[in-house]
Amino acid sequence: MAKNKCNVEIFGQQYSIVGQESLSYMRQVASHVDEMMRQVADNNPRLDTTRLAVLSAVNIASDYLKLKREYDEILHLMEDEQP
Amino acid sequence: MAKNKCNVEIFGQQYSIVGQESLSYMRQVASHVDEMMRQVADNNPRLDTTRLAVLSAVNIASDYLKLKREYDEILHLMEDEQP
Repeated sequence: MAKNKCNVEIFGQQYSIVGQESLSYMRQVASHVDEMMRQVADNNPRLDTTRLAVLSAVNIASDYLKLKREYDEILHLMEDEQP
Repeated sequence: MAKNKCNVEIFGQQYSIVGQESLSYMRQVASHVDEMMRQVADNNPRLDTTRLAVLSAVNIASDYLKLKREYDEILHLMEDEQP
């Protein structure tokens, strides 16, 4: 499958990200990380960038695992409803 | 709502994370980020830790946004099926 390469800016730094998704999707992902980092930075102005990035990853992973739990519950409900 | 505080190790560094979720959930989140960072580091041995953390956040955000899309589609389908 062809890979796309996309240059994005996250928290003032340039990154080149590669993936099978569309360029607009990759930009959306980068923008989500950029927003989360700015939010964490606003709440923790003394954090260095590495810790800021790790804590942003923690926040995003927390959102992901919560959604995963809800998603799995819905799939389970749908299976129970099958005739 | 009461907040829990949890000390975790992510990619060899100590972090103190705070949240309304259970301690076991916060450890699970930290472990997810740790695993993702180790995976990105294995594939990109020359990356500095900040870029490693940002790219890990990008990967997790990509998983999140894909799951969000699927989740929203399922909710939409369920609404259409309502009598």
